Amino acid sequence: MGIIKKIFNKNTRLSPEDGIFFDELNKILGFQPVDLTHYRRAFTHRSSNKQDENGHPINYERLEFLGDAMLGSVIAAHLFNEVPTGDEGYLTKMRSKIVSREHLNELGRDLNLIKWVESKVSAQHFGENIHGNLFEAFIGAIYLDRGFNYCEKFIHKKVIAPYVDIPKLEGKVISYKSLVIEWCQKEKKTFQYEIYEDNGTEGQKHFAVKLKIDGKIIARARATSKKKAEEKASQRAYFAFQEKINKK
Amino acid sequence: MGIIKKIFNKNTRLSPEDGIFFDELNKILGFQPVDLTHYRRAFTHRSSNKQDENGHPINYERLEFLGDAMLGSVIAAHLFNEVPTGDEGYLTKMRSKIVSREHLNELGRDLNLIKWVESKVSAQHFGENIHGNLFEAFIGAIYLDRGFNYCEKFIHKKVIAPYVDIPKLEGKVISYKSLVIEWCQKEKKTFQYEIYEDNGTEGQKHFAVKLKIDGKIIARARATSKKKAEEKASQRAYFAFQEKINKK
Repeated sequence: MGIIKKIFNKNTRLSPEDGIFFDELNKILGFQPVDLTHYRRAFTHRSSNKQDENGHPINYERLEFLGDAMLGSVIAAHLFNEVPTGDEGYLTKMRSKIVSREHLNELGRDLNLIKWVESKVSAQHFGENIHGNLFEAFIGAIYLDRGFNYCEKFIHKKVIAPYVDIPKLEGKVISYKSLVIEWCQKEKKTFQYEIYEDNGTEGQKHFAVKLKIDGKIIARARATSKKKAEEKASQRAYFAFQEKINKK
Repeated sequence: MGIIKKIFNKNTRLSPEDGIFFDELNKILGFQPVDLTHYRRAFTHRSSNKQDENGHPINYERLEFLGDAMLGSVIAAHLFNEVPTGDEGYLTKMRSKIVSREHLNELGRDLNLIKWVESKVSAQHFGENIHGNLFEAFIGAIYLDRGFNYCEKFIHKKVIAPYVDIPKLEGKVISYKSLVIEWCQKEKKTFQYEIYEDNGTEGQKHFAVKLKIDGKIIARARATSKKKAEEKASQRAYFAFQEKINKK
């Protein structure tokens, strides 16, 4: 099926609307989507009352189930490989922390998936959980569109690399901001967190932060509170440094 | 890593013991194993007290976690595709039935995985759950050895094709034996369930059954009770007929 659709897409001019959707998805995914219908479905809220030709409802709820399963197995494989000392109980606990409702909501919110939602009710009627639900459904759509390996690729890029931080999940690191400050003081470097409001189109207050070390921007982040944005930028800076150290 | 190991295996003569293990795995898997160490680990009970060079215990418990996750996502994808009318709640419920403890134990027992267990305690000290645990660990080993797609292939062949029977899971089909008998009576065919004890090496009583229709063996099955074996053979016969009908 995938191949037929691929040929179809290549030979068909996308509508302007689909063209924009394709480009934005491409940017978020880091690879090309093939069949946009999966992604359209991932953003269709049940209130839109859509149905397919057989009268089955079209909305993202079934895709949540699929995405949740894929996320669970990708995170399981990652933890299994990363923590050779962790027993079954440890691995199960760590995975629950990573795929917690709160964390999924954060992931969906950060990608601003809600901007694509097609619904008959206005955005302020959605609860907080819509962000996580959309995130799961989005993963389900990736699986249907490109298969497990692309799904894994996406989860590595958007969940594991920026967020899965085993020492912090284990409670061993309390704050990355304090690690960054400590490091700067030790290395005699200046640091600066530049914060500004950056609300975008979501209607909810957001803050963006630039972390400068010796005047150079080292990391950026955006979150719903100043504290969260600072912590996220610090974490990113910390990981960027770790990567440099490991490459040496 | 996989490729290096593959070359290594090809250029290295396997020990007689590994050669037998390789052949038996090949038969069960339906494809060649590459790195036998994953499968050895999948059958190493904690009582063997094995450790790797870093002092980490070697046993199958961590692999259970991995196999459980892979099984969950493969079954999720199958149900998603097979039951387009099922909502999230339905899909979740059906998956729980398929990966129930009882069912996993049955799958492990049928493959007789216990014959490979390396342990310091004798087999009668294991509880019933060891069969399901070994089955999960075995799937984890397949994932590590050959990746998700082979894992999916194996689950389709050994779990989905012979066991995942949506009408029965939904409670719509109570007994396949009665369906087979009804069909034979309608079609004026003779049927016969030939049952004999077939205990193998497991130490637990097993029964094997041959289902003959008009004197020809249509299906075979083996289980821990006469009733279960008959039902399993009937189910296999039913699916074989369904497949024939669908191909027409």
